[in-house]
Amino acid sequence: MSFNTFGHAFRFTTWGESHGPAIGAVVDGCPPGLPLSEADIQPFLDARRPGQSRFTTQRQEPDAVKILSGVFEGQDGIQRTTGTPISLMIENVDQRSKDYGDVAKAYRPGHADYAYDAKYGFRDYRGGGRSSARETASRVAAGAVARAVIPEVQILAWVSAIGGDAIDMANFDAAEIGRNPFFCPDAQAAARWEALVDQARKSGSSLGAVVECVATGVPAGWGAPLYAKLDAELAHAMMGINAVKGVEIGDGFAAAANTGEGNADPMRPGNDGPLFTANHAGGIAGGISTGQPVTVRVAFKPTSSILTPMPTITREGEATELFTKGRHDPCVGIRGVPVVEAMMALVLADQKLLHRAQTGR
Amino acid sequence: MSFNTFGHAFRFTTWGESHGPAIGAVVDGCPPGLPLSEADIQPFLDARRPGQSRFTTQRQEPDAVKILSGVFEGQDGIQRTTGTPISLMIENVDQRSKDYGDVAKAYRPGHADYAYDAKYGFRDYRGGGRSSARETASRVAAGAVARAVIPEVQILAWVSAIGGDAIDMANFDAAEIGRNPFFCPDAQAAARWEALVDQARKSGSSLGAVVECVATGVPAGWGAPLYAKLDAELAHAMMGINAVKGVEIGDGFAAAANTGEGNADPMRPGNDGPLFTANHAGGIAGGISTGQPVTVRVAFKPTSSILTPMPTITREGEATELFTKGRHDPCVGIRGVPVVEAMMALVLADQKLLHRAQTGR
Amino acid sequence: MSFNTFGHAFRFTTWGESHGPAIGAVVDGCPPGLPLSEADIQPFLDARRPGQSRFTTQRQEPDAVKILSGVFEGQDGIQRTTGTPISLMIENVDQRSKDYGDVAKAYRPGHADYAYDAKYGFRDYRGGGRSSARETASRVAAGAVARAVIPEVQILAWVSAIGGDAIDMANFDAAEIGRNPFFCPDAQAAARWEALVDQARKSGSSLGAVVECVATGVPAGWGAPLYAKLDAELAHAMMGINAVKGVEIGDGFAAAANTGEGNADPMRPGNDGPLFTANHAGGIAGGISTGQPVTVRVAFKPTSSILTPMPTITREGEATELFTKGRHDPCVGIRGVPVVEAMMALVLADQKLLHRAQTGR
Amino acid sequence: MSFNTFGHAFRFTTWGESHGPAIGAVVDGCPPGLPLSEADIQPFLDARRPGQSRFTTQRQEPDAVKILSGVFEGQDGIQRTTGTPISLMIENVDQRSKDYGDVAKAYRPGHADYAYDAKYGFRDYRGGGRSSARETASRVAAGAVARAVIPEVQILAWVSAIGGDAIDMANFDAAEIGRNPFFCPDAQAAARWEALVDQARKSGSSLGAVVECVATGVPAGWGAPLYAKLDAELAHAMMGINAVKGVEIGDGFAAAANTGEGNADPMRPGNDGPLFTANHAGGIAGGISTGQPVTVRVAFKPTSSILTPMPTITREGEATELFTKGRHDPCVGIRGVPVVEAMMALVLADQKLLHRAQTGR
Repeated sequence: MSFNTFGHAFRFTTWGESHGPAIGAVVDGCPPGLPLSEADIQPFLDARRPGQSRFTTQRQEPDAVKILSGVFEGQDGIQRTTGTPISLMIENVDQRSKDYGDVAKAYRPGHADYAYDAKYGFRDYRGGGRSSARETASRVAAGAVARAVIPEVQILAWVSAIGGDAIDMANFDAAEIGRNPFFCPDAQAAARWEALVDQARKSGSSLGAVVECVATGVPAGWGAPLYAKLDAELAHAMMGINAVKGVEIGDGFAAAANTGEGNADPMRPGNDGPLFTANHAGGIAGGISTGQPVTVRVAFKPTSSILTPMPTITREGEATELFTKGRHDPCVGIRGVPVVEAMMALVLADQKLLHRAQTGR
Repeated sequence: MSFNTFGHAFRFTTWGESHGPAIGAVVDGCPPGLPLSEADIQPFLDARRPGQSRFTTQRQEPDAVKILSGVFEGQDGIQRTTGTPISLMIENVDQRSKDYGDVAKAYRPGHADYAYDAKYGFRDYRGGGRSSARETASRVAAGAVARAVIPEVQILAWVSAIGGDAIDMANFDAAEIGRNPFFCPDAQAAARWEALVDQARKSGSSLGAVVECVATGVPAGWGAPLYAKLDAELAHAMMGINAVKGVEIGDGFAAAANTGEGNADPMRPGNDGPLFTANHAGGIAGGISTGQPVTVRVAFKPTSSILTPMPTITREGEATELFTKGRHDPCVGIRGVPVVEAMMALVLADQKLLHRAQTGR
Repeated sequence: MSFNTFGHAFRFTTWGESHGPAIGAVVDGCPPGLPLSEADIQPFLDARRPGQSRFTTQRQEPDAVKILSGVFEGQDGIQRTTGTPISLMIENVDQRSKDYGDVAKAYRPGHADYAYDAKYGFRDYRGGGRSSARETASRVAAGAVARAVIPEVQILAWVSAIGGDAIDMANFDAAEIGRNPFFCPDAQAAARWEALVDQARKSGSSLGAVVECVATGVPAGWGAPLYAKLDAELAHAMMGINAVKGVEIGDGFAAAANTGEGNADPMRPGNDGPLFTANHAGGIAGGISTGQPVTVRVAFKPTSSILTPMPTITREGEATELFTKGRHDPCVGIRGVPVVEAMMALVLADQKLLHRAQTGR
Repeated sequence: MSFNTFGHAFRFTTWGESHGPAIGAVVDGCPPGLPLSEADIQPFLDARRPGQSRFTTQRQEPDAVKILSGVFEGQDGIQRTTGTPISLMIENVDQRSKDYGDVAKAYRPGHADYAYDAKYGFRDYRGGGRSSARETASRVAAGAVARAVIPEVQILAWVSAIGGDAIDMANFDAAEIGRNPFFCPDAQAAARWEALVDQARKSGSSLGAVVECVATGVPAGWGAPLYAKLDAELAHAMMGINAVKGVEIGDGFAAAANTGEGNADPMRPGNDGPLFTANHAGGIAGGISTGQPVTVRVAFKPTSSILTPMPTITREGEATELFTKGRHDPCVGIRGVPVVEAMMALVLADQKLLHRAQTGR
C-alpha cells in the first residue's frame, strides 16, 4: 500500500527509480478531446532538467518524454486525449557507472536510506532509488497534462529565498524569472545568490530554499469543506515533494501572529463577483476557492548530500562516517520550481473535475 | 465528491452541522478486539469542549458521545471493537436561538460563507453550518478510537505561541500544559497570555496561534516513499483543520534557511536501532518514520469572527458591513490542541495498518 | 480495512448491527439543491420492511428514518440537500429478547458465523450482527437519496423465480408487482408461489429466488472502459447484497451458449440516437451504457436459517447440531427487490457524477 | 475518472491500446523481498498469447514483458521486489496495417464503438483501441506478480462449456487442460469442440463460453462483511473482463432454485479447522472466505466480430451494414482462461493484504 497514486478524479500514478531503465507516469481520468502531444509536455521537463547550469546537478538527462497511450490523431490531424489512460515514459540515460559500495553498506544521514531499510528490509541504493529527486520528472510530465485540463488557470512559481536570503518583493519582475538560473524574480537577489550558491557548491555544502507559487484564474467554488479541502490537498501535494518540510497557504505562519482585524479580507462589490481588498487567506476559505489568486509557499531543506563526512552507522549497526561523492544539487529547491508548479496544476485539475462531478458546473 | 472521509486503511467519515440535531463520525477498518467504551472517548472530548474558561466560546455543549455500532461485550465482560464500522454520535444541545438574518443575507469576510454559496448555490448559515469548528468534535472522538490502535505511541500537543508571543522552550514543562486554560507548557507565557487573550476577548478581537505536536514511540518504517508519505499525510490532516494556514515537519521553514551541515541528523549506534544526535527532520526521512519523535507545527489564523464591522457584500452583491454577534473563540487555536492530537493519532493509526498490509509486520 | 463504503463520486458508508441501538448510512458527494425530506425516503423503507405478510420474517420494525445532517430548508420553505454529508439513522426497535447461547457457542452452517470468528476472533452473534439482512435497510435509505440524483432514470425490479418456479414473461404486468406479497409481475405465478412459500414457511424450510431489475432512461455514455465498467460496478453492488450468489447483465449465461449472430444487437437510425432492434447486451457495451434499458438478474440463495437441525461444530471444534429458532424469512429474495433497486440507483447516481467529472456533460 | 486501477492494498493500473506502441501495467503496494523476474511472468503471458492455434486470433504477438521498475538484485544475486511500484510493459508488434475506414465511419454492433463515441465524442478505432481484448495481457502480467504474493494459494481455471456444449465433470482431468487448445479438462468435450469451433471459425461466426476457476489454499478469514466482500470483489473483477456477461460464486443461479436444506454446507470437526461436507457457497460466507475452495463461474459472450453483415448506423446516423474483416477469435472465452486466473490472483492478493492490515495476521 505504498500509494504511488495522487488525485481523485484526475489521477496520476508514477513509477521508476533513479538508475532503472526508465521512469514514468500514468494519468487517468483525463477529459477527452484535449490537444496533447509530446511537444506540449517537453518544455516543462526542459525547465526541470538537470545539468543546465553549474548550480544544479551535472547529471545529463535529455528527459525526452514519450506518450505511449491515451491519445489519438483525429480527422483534423490534431492529436487529442481519448479519455483513456495516458502513459508517459522518460528513459534514464546518464546512470553513470559508479561504485555504490559505501552507500550499500552504510546509511547516508538525512537521506531515506535507513528508513527504507527499516520499512522494506531492502533497498535499491543506486542514486537513491525511488527516493531520488529524479522521480519528480514524472510529476512534471503529468503536470503538463493537467495544465491542458485547466486552461482558465495561470500558474507561476519562483524561488523567494535561498539559505535565508530572501527576495525583495518591491523588485518583483515576473519576466526576470526566466533570465537567471535560480527562477528568481528579483535581479538583485539573483546576483547575490550566484555568489552564495557558488560558494556552497565549491565547498560541497548545500542550501535550503523557499518556493512560492500563485495560481490565478481559479474560479470561486473549487475545493470541499473538509478532508478534501483545496488547502489540505495542496499541503498534501507539496509536502509530498522530496526535501519539502513546510507548506503555507496565504499568510501561513504570519497569520498565527496576527489579529482578526489584521488578517481580514474585506469584500467590495465587483463586476465579476466580489472584489477582495486583501488576500491573507491565499484564495481559499473553508477549503473552497474564493476566486482570488491561490498562493502557496513551500520550504525545501538543503539536500543532505554534502562533502563533509558525517557520523552514521552501517547496515550492521557499526559506527562509521559517510560523505556524498559525485554529482549533486547544491540547492535542490531551485529545481523544485517546476515541480511545485506541476503539483499546483495537478491539484487544480483534480478539483475542477471533482467540482463538476458534484455540481454539474 | 466532497470527500468527508479521511484515511486509507483506518478510515473515518464525519457528518453534521453546527445547528443540526447531532454530529458524528463513522470509523471503518478498526482492528477487532480492542477494548473500547464511551468512557475511553469522553475525556478527549472534554478537553476540547467549549465553555470551560472565559478564553473559549461560551457555547455550552456536554459533548456526550454515544457508540451506536461496532463494539460488543465479550464473555470477559469487556466491551471490544468487533472490526465492523464504529458509529459515533454527539448530540447538539446548545444551538442557541438567534436571528441569523444578517448572516443569511451577507457574507462574513474571512468565513466560508461566500465560498459555500459559490460552490453549492446554497448554505446552512446557522452557526457556520458544516464549516463550524464544532465539526472537530467528531475528529476528536474518532481520534480517541485511533489511539486504541497505536498503544505504542504517545502523543502530546501544546500551544507554543499566541498572537506572536511564543513560549520559551527553556521553560517547557509538560505537566504545566493541563494546569492553565491555554494548553501552555510555559507557566510564564501562560501568565502573559491571560492578559493578552483577555484583551482580545474584551475588545471583540481575535488572535492567531501556533500548536506543536510530538509523537514518540513511532517505530521506524511507517509511511511510504511517495504520495502517501507520512509527512504528506500529516500535512493533509493538519491543513484540513478549520483555520489552519501552515504546517511544518521538524524544522520546517527554518530548514530552508539552513545548510546541509547545519540541518544534518547524524546517527550513532544504539541498543535499539540507531541513535540520532539531532532531529531536524522531525522523525521522517523520505516520507518514512525513522524512529525519532515525529514533530509537527501548525499555524492557526485568528478567527474571522470579530466585533469590528468589516466591509462585505450581500448575496445580491450590494456593499454592506458585517460584524459577528454573540459567542465566539477569541483564539481558536487553543481548542485546536486536542484536534491536532486527534489528527496525529488518526494518521499514525492509518499508517500502522498500511505498513503491516504491505510488510506483514 | 473493512470498507463499508460504496461508490466513487456519490459514496455511502453504512454502519450498524442487527441488535445494536440503530443502523444508518452516511451519503457523501450528493449534489446540492435537491429536494429531500424523510418523506422522500420512507416509502422505500416501507417496501423493504419486514413483518408485512406471513411470507417474510415477523420482526416488527417501523424502520423510521431520521435525516441528521446535510439538508437545509431554504427560503422557499423546501428542504434541500446542501452538498455536505447526509447522515441517515434508523433506530432498532424490535430486538426481541432471546437466548443466544446456542449461536454464541456454535456456528450456524451457511451463515457468516464461522467466517467472522476466523477473521476477527470475535463476533456480535445477536441476530447475525453486522451480517444480518437488517443492514440492507441502510442501503435502501441511501438508495432513496440516489434516486433524487437521477430523476431521468426509472428503476423497476421484481421477483422472476422462487425455488426454481419462474414467471412467464407473457404474463408480465408491471402493475401486478405491487398487488401481491412477492413483488411478482405474473399473477398466475404469484398464486403458485403463495402455496410454495407457505409450505416452506410451515415446514421451516427456505427457498432461493431470482430478482430482475431494469433501469430505463439511462443515457448513452455512463460507465468506463475498464475496472469501473458499468457492468462491473453493478456486479459488485449486487454480489455485495446478503445471500446473493450470481449476477447477470443482459442475457448473462445464456449469451455463453449463443452465437455471434444470435447475440447481436443491430442498430437502426432513430430520432434520438440509434434504435437497437435487440438488447442481448443489457444496455451496456464495453462497460459503457448504450442508451438501451440496463438489465440485471440477481440470484438469491435460500436463507440458511432453517428448522432442520444441521451438523456443525462449536467454537471449540466439537461436533454438534444446530437449527434456527425464531423469526426468519422463508424466501429472503422477496425482500431483496427494494435492495436491488436501491443498489441500481446508487451505482447509476455514482456513474452519472463520474461521467460529468470527466466529460463535463 | 475512468478508473483504470483495480484493488485497494495491492493495486494495479493498466494502460494502452490495441494499436499503440505498447501496453502495460503499474503494480503498487506489492510486498518487498519477493523474488520476481521477467521469467516469472512470461509463462502466463504465453498461455494467453494469440496465434498459437487456429482457434484463436491469428495476430502474432510475442508479448514479451519488460520490468521497468520496482525490482532490485540483492547481494544474493536474486532479483526481488523492493516495495516500490512495479512497471510492466509489453510492446505491440503485430499492428497489421489495415484500412480502418469502415470502422472509423460506422459502429460495429455489439462492440463498444457507439458507447465510446457517446461518452467521449471521439475514439481510437484501430483494433478496438482500449476496448480490445489485447488489454487483458496487462492483467495477466499483473496477475503473475499477484501470484508471488499468495504462494499459499493454487489457482486453476478451465473452459467448462462452449456454445452451450458443456463438459462432463465425470471426465474431469486437470492434466488434460494443458493438452488441448481449449483449456478443456474433458478430453471428449475437447474433441467435440474442435469440430464446433472449426465450424464457427470457417463460417465467420463466433461462440460463447463458460470459464470456471477454483482457488484452493485460501485460508478462512479473507474478505470483509460488506462492500468489499470477497464475492463482491470477485464479481467486480470478473465482470470487468471484456465480453463477460455473468458471474456466479459457488452454486450461483442453481442456489436460487434450491432449498435451505439442499443448499446447506454442514461442518464436521477436522484437524485443521472445520471439515465442510459440501461447498454450495463456493468457499465464501458473509463475504469472508471459509477455508473451502473459492469457486467462480464466468460467462463469456460470443465475440461480436463476425463475417455476417449486420445492420448498423454511421457516425452521422445513416443506416448501413458492417461485418468484421480480418483476424478475430471465434471463441474469445478460450483465451479468457488465463485472464480469469489472473483476476482471481489479483483479488486474493489484495484481500490478503487488507486482511493483515486490519487483523495483523
